Amino acid sequence: MITSPANEKIKNIIQLSTSAKARRDQNAFIVEGIKMYTEAPPKRVREVFISEDLLDKANIAARYDDKNPGADLLKKCRRRLDQTGYTEVSNKVFRKMAETVTPQGIICVVERKTYDINDLTRVGDDMSLKVLILEEIQDPGNLGTMIRTAEAAGIDFVLASEGTVDVYNPKVTRATMGSVFRVPIVYTKQLKDDVELLKKVGVRVYAAHLKGRTAYDKVKYGNRTAIMIGNEGSGLSEHTAALADEFIRIPMKGLVESLNASVAAALCMFKI
Amino acid sequence: MITSPANEKIKNIIQLSTSAKARRDQNAFIVEGIKMYTEAPPKRVREVFISEDLLDKANIAARYDDKNPGADLLKKCRRRLDQTGYTEVSNKVFRKMAETVTPQGIICVVERKTYDINDLTRVGDDMSLKVLILEEIQDPGNLGTMIRTAEAAGIDFVLASEGTVDVYNPKVTRATMGSVFRVPIVYTKQLKDDVELLKKVGVRVYAAHLKGRTAYDKVKYGNRTAIMIGNEGSGLSEHTAALADEFIRIPMKGLVESLNASVAAALCMFKI
Repeated sequence: MITSPANEKIKNIIQLSTSAKARRDQNAFIVEGIKMYTEAPPKRVREVFISEDLLDKANIAARYDDKNPGADLLKKCRRRLDQTGYTEVSNKVFRKMAETVTPQGIICVVERKTYDINDLTRVGDDMSLKVLILEEIQDPGNLGTMIRTAEAAGIDFVLASEGTVDVYNPKVTRATMGSVFRVPIVYTKQLKDDVELLKKVGVRVYAAHLKGRTAYDKVKYGNRTAIMIGNEGSGLSEHTAALADEFIRIPMKGLVESLNASVAAALCMFKI
Repeated sequence: MITSPANEKIKNIIQLSTSAKARRDQNAFIVEGIKMYTEAPPKRVREVFISEDLLDKANIAARYDDKNPGADLLKKCRRRLDQTGYTEVSNKVFRKMAETVTPQGIICVVERKTYDINDLTRVGDDMSLKVLILEEIQDPGNLGTMIRTAEAAGIDFVLASEGTVDVYNPKVTRATMGSVFRVPIVYTKQLKDDVELLKKVGVRVYAAHLKGRTAYDKVKYGNRTAIMIGNEGSGLSEHTAALADEFIRIPMKGLVESLNASVAAALCMFKI
């Protein structure tokens, strides 16, 4: 059991929580919480740290086969621990390494998966392709919510400009509620080239834009469609918006000037 | 100019920022930022505190009639200061009273407006009535986003259970982007009675619920419609869900168990 916050492994967890560079260098990220841990693909889980208290609880739930609905997750967690292995951590040290205010007692290091846009677009001619394109989204909660919504709406992958907040930031992964493990996301330095590539494989690109004339719910979307969403404060940049085949708008009442970016993205994604 | 953080007015601002009780007792709340200040109805603005720096900037923008697009808001701010009056605060003290990490230099105290559900529902027989009903929403960002979306979607008012986070919490008002001044919200201790009242005036009540059979976008909504959204973690309670005329669901792909509450609310509000 780790009982010292000076332990190198504990220090590394804090590094992975706070530094995008450390996450890149180690090709890994951390996730917190029982649900997120049980949703992580076991093969990608490199290390698991569990607090004394949670380990006790999981052991008890498993041993006495607790039938309360709340115990299901604990039992699943206990089974998963056998698959992935784990390191026990004193409660005190655990509180130090956790990001959340009320930590649930489990943190794991998960391998990042990198995707290549060429692979993601190399699909059969008759297959549909739905893409969410993001430019400079800054709020971790917004990005996380968009990825969660993207999975629910059946989006195939997310293409994000380089300046978009890091998807492996713990605030983002938490807001995805597990979708981070399942929705491919590609960060690109060359958004223009990649959007051109999408067009080449037959994807029609729509930009959610205040200058759009057609209402988003009046368009007949094909089975290869992408939707572009811009930064929370400034929207899409001119040069990115210019890549779109068509502008669409979300009709708004009252004096509202724009919608929250994750709300706008959700409305469009559920339409396409 | 106020230069001491011990000034009673400054202390009161911090009280109003942090205590829901203080906001109730004084029937007021605070808003931060230039945009929010210019959107606040002048008659409801009780007090304005502006930092030396921002006052300088606004004065300069107005005096030299700065034509840069960014200066419009500053000039509007300067005109509004003449209407509402203001108190200048030293930069140092201002940073102490501000809630945000990068304060813009203006905070004002705004009078709360209380609404009576009997008034809000007393509308002509031929008039439409669209209501968002919230139960125990806990996340300030979610509530703020919902109110902003509600205005854009043309919702007439929001009915919230008593346990819903305080709409006058600064984190909520900020996320509303000004809609807090325009969308009536009623907190109720008797959600059941109020929902019954809505039904009595011809409002059909839909609950977004995982047990719903009809997809939310397949329903023919009438012009008197309410949509009920439950707590982020646990959804609608059984007794509240039981008040609904009909359950609706949002079809989801992948392994997603639920959507973010403000996303679910947005999809439904834009449909009804």
